[in-house]
Order: sequence, then structure tokens, then C-alpha cells
Amino acid sequence: MSGTFRTQKRVEFGDTDMAGIVHFSNFFRYMEIAETDFLRARGLSVSMAYNGLKIGFPRVAVACDFKRPARFEDVLDIDVTVEEIGRKSIRYRFDFSRDGKELAVGTMTAVCCRHTADHGMESLEIPEEMRAKLEGAE
Amino acid sequence: MSGTFRTQKRVEFGDTDMAGIVHFSNFFRYMEIAETDFLRARGLSVSMAYNGLKIGFPRVAVACDFKRPARFEDVLDIDVTVEEIGRKSIRYRFDFSRDGKELAVGTMTAVCCRHTADHGMESLEIPEEMRAKLEGAE
Amino acid sequence: MSGTFRTQKRVEFGDTDMAGIVHFSNFFRYMEIAETDFLRARGLSVSMAYNGLKIGFPRVAVACDFKRPARFEDVLDIDVTVEEIGRKSIRYRFDFSRDGKELAVGTMTAVCCRHTADHGMESLEIPEEMRAKLEGAE
Amino acid sequence: MSGTFRTQKRVEFGDTDMAGIVHFSNFFRYMEIAETDFLRARGLSVSMAYNGLKIGFPRVAVACDFKRPARFEDVLDIDVTVEEIGRKSIRYRFDFSRDGKELAVGTMTAVCCRHTADHGMESLEIPEEMRAKLEGAE
Repeated sequence: MSGTFRTQKRVEFGDTDMAGIVHFSNFFRYMEIAETDFLRARGLSVSMAYNGLKIGFPRVAVACDFKRPARFEDVLDIDVTVEEIGRKSIRYRFDFSRDGKELAVGTMTAVCCRHTADHGMESLEIPEEMRAKLEGAE
Repeated sequence: MSGTFRTQKRVEFGDTDMAGIVHFSNFFRYMEIAETDFLRARGLSVSMAYNGLKIGFPRVAVACDFKRPARFEDVLDIDVTVEEIGRKSIRYRFDFSRDGKELAVGTMTAVCCRHTADHGMESLEIPEEMRAKLEGAE
Repeated sequence: MSGTFRTQKRVEFGDTDMAGIVHFSNFFRYMEIAETDFLRARGLSVSMAYNGLKIGFPRVAVACDFKRPARFEDVLDIDVTVEEIGRKSIRYRFDFSRDGKELAVGTMTAVCCRHTADHGMESLEIPEEMRAKLEGAE
Repeated sequence: MSGTFRTQKRVEFGDTDMAGIVHFSNFFRYMEIAETDFLRARGLSVSMAYNGLKIGFPRVAVACDFKRPARFEDVLDIDVTVEEIGRKSIRYRFDFSRDGKELAVGTMTAVCCRHTADHGMESLEIPEEMRAKLEGAE
């Protein structure tokens, strides 16, 4: 399904911890940045208006395996692969590398939701037009 | 005006950076925690419903001077002083210390606002009932 | 193996995102806080000196499934279960709930490492004294 | 003194809070990114080796005034001005704008330090070669 999209992220000083490496929780922020870059490249967003609805993509499951640490000023390559587009959800894989060496592999399942009053959310079938953009070959 | 309120915050591993100390930006998160603790102790919140309005306190000016670094597992004492309550704004001072040694001094000015449609905000006179709670002696 | 340890975490304003809920990446920060609280209760730390070595516990795999959102000022109960203590690693499970309702379930595998020069790390068998504390029944 | 350096930062989803705007503490992270970009453009870094010393630039004073909120996916222009280079310190100003509209103005004073054993730090005169790079006209 749909090829791989690559984006890059430079590690900031404030992303590191006292062990001298990127704090593990920041890999999830990097995944979100990669997801957002991917969606933007397809004319979509994790937070968008669509036919009068406010659509969002809250995550229902995420994971990350860490192979090598990342450090300040490293420029990480992040390859985004859409592993599956379900009726209401998308599953991504994120391959982190630096100079071709694997650093980490993450996965994320996000569910298409519309915002209801008072910050509520209700799952929704992915609208046809969005699905077409998600499935579009590069 | 109204005495000083003390709260505590333990430094988490993820709050540190590769220099082995708390990343300076986290002192602003600690100020917010202290502000929230202070308001909660008076029956208020930085985000609350009031007479059908959604009230918030966005910050318009913040500053921090750093004297000594804070480290992982330090338990910081944070003294919150309300320096001034204006018609629409509050100015706080936060004194950070550990075992009686001064670490940092922060200030924050927050403005009372009501949320309008679409994430807009409009400044507002601090409602009388809130003001009374803010001014209340401990 | 060793019973369950419970700690609590209050959601801070800065932990939320524009969807009005806790940003998913912060659940990993909460896991770290719970892990640290658990270790501290047993006289250990994620970063400690031991027989002249600097010992740390970098994470090699983490995951989280989200069932219900958490919101500002929620007080989360976090139950920490040590699922397995291997030769060099520990696997934790974290059950997040609020008023008895399940919010999220996380897992984390951390590897015992010693710090080498220049922020390097080398895996290490968990020292016997640490293992005894980890395994100790409450 | 030395002209102004411009960099850009896109607002990420995780940078926002439940008020729908960038959490104020993140402006300090943005300042750090701008500082780092500025130093990198001059062949320097906030964390670098220099003649066998490990040099860093911890901040001793920071401040920010907020004029307008920033939101998800905004691309912020950040103008970095070196306001003063002292014997041991640098003072920066950061002007945040979007489409020419002023959003915030920050200041930061960083002190040149060398790392000593055990995460200690000791202030240091800015080495002549660094000073030359900092003062270099664009």
C-alpha cells in the first residue's frame, strides 16, 4: 500500500536528558511530526475542518522499539509507511535512522474522529475524499 | 497582599537535559504547576466555568532568573506570592529553593479572559467572587 | 511476582493539547514518573551510583494502548506491575485509571546499563542487591 | 552589533494546550532552537568541545512577552538579535512574528561555562575565537 514518505527532524538540546541522549518520550513527538508532515504532503491534517465537521485523529495505540540512541544535533531520517487504512483507522510505521543506521521503529494507530461539544470525540468512517488522498500513490 | 503559598515539585528524569540539570524551560512548567496548586487551594482554576463563561488565564509576560541548577530527584520548594491583582490581571512571583538555598526566581502576569467561539479569547475584569478568593488571607 | 505498586499523578494544564485532552506522548512521561516512584519506594533509582558504577535503565521497548482520554486536573491512578525481571532487563506494566475506570495500559522494557565515558552505555547483569530489592514483596 | 539572523519554526500539534494555542513554555523551546540555529550558522553550538574543554551556555535569565497567540501549523519567523556580548555572557533578543504580525518578544542571557567533573559548571571568558565568530557581521 502507498509508498514510503521520508521526512527529517533535527534533535534539539531540550530533547535530550541527563543520560546525554534523546529522552525516549520524544520519539513519540517525532512520530507526530512525521505523521503531520506526511498528512500535509497529501493536503490533510491531524486537525482539520471537513464538511462542517471538526475532524481529528487521536491515537489509540502506539509503540516504539529503540535500537540505538539519538543525540543532540543528529539529523534523523524518518520513513513513514501507511501499513493499513481501516474503515475508521490508520496504522503507521515510522523507521528512524541516521546515516543509514537504524535507531528506532515506531507504530501508531490513529482513529478518525469528529469533535463533539465540550471536547468530546466520536469515531467516524474516514471520509471518502480523505481516504483517496491517504491511498494516493506518491 | 495575601501571604505566601508554598508547594513542592519533585524533578523528574525527563525534566533534565544533557547538561545533567533541569532544562530551563521546565521552570515555566513548574511555575504553572505552582500557580495551579495555589488557585486550587483557593477554589479556583486556570481553566474554569463561571456564570456560563469559560474563563482562562493566558500569560502575557513571564520571566525567570536562574541562580543554581536543579537536578533529578531534587524536591523543590516553590513559594507563590501574588504581587498584584489588577482590574483584569494577576502578577505572581515564584521563589524556587531547595533546602533553603535559592535556585531561581520567576514572575508571571496572567490576564483573565473568556473563551469565545473558535478558540478566541477576550480579556475580562476579574469577577468579584474570584477576586475575593484571590485576595483572601490564608 | 512482586505485587502491584500504586502511585498517582495529577494532569497539569501544559500536559493537554488543543483537542482538550492529555497529549498521548505525556503518558510515557507519566510511566517514567510511576517507574521512578516505584524504584524510589524500594531504595532504587533510574539513575544511581552502585559500587563505583553509574547505573541507568534506558528503555528498549515501550507501548501504550489508550481507552479513554485524560483531562486537565484529573488525578490518575497508576498501578505499576513488574511483569518480568530478566538477567539484564525489567518489564513493567502500567495500568492507568481514574475513579476505577481504565484509561490506558502501558508497557516498558528497561535494560540495566552502566555509563561509559562520553555518554556511552553498556548493558550489565542486574546486580544481585538490586535484584533482591526489585523482587522484594511489598 | 552584528545584524539579525532569521529562522523559522512550524508549530507542532503537541506544542498546543487545551486553550487551542501554543503553550507559553514552548516559546522558550523555540528560543533555544533559534539560538542553536544562529550558533550553527556561525560554526558554533550551545554544547561544544573547544581546546579540550567541554563548553556550554546555560541560561541565567530569560523572559518573554506575549502579544498574540500562535496556533497549530503556524510557521513562525524568529529574528535573533545579539544584543550584547559581555566578557562571559551573551544576551539575545528573539522577535516572533507570523506574516509580519508580532506575536512575542523574548530575551535570554547565556553564560559561557566549561563542564567540570560530575555535571558541575564553571563560568569562563568567551574564548577569542568564539567571540570573533559571534561578532562576525553577516
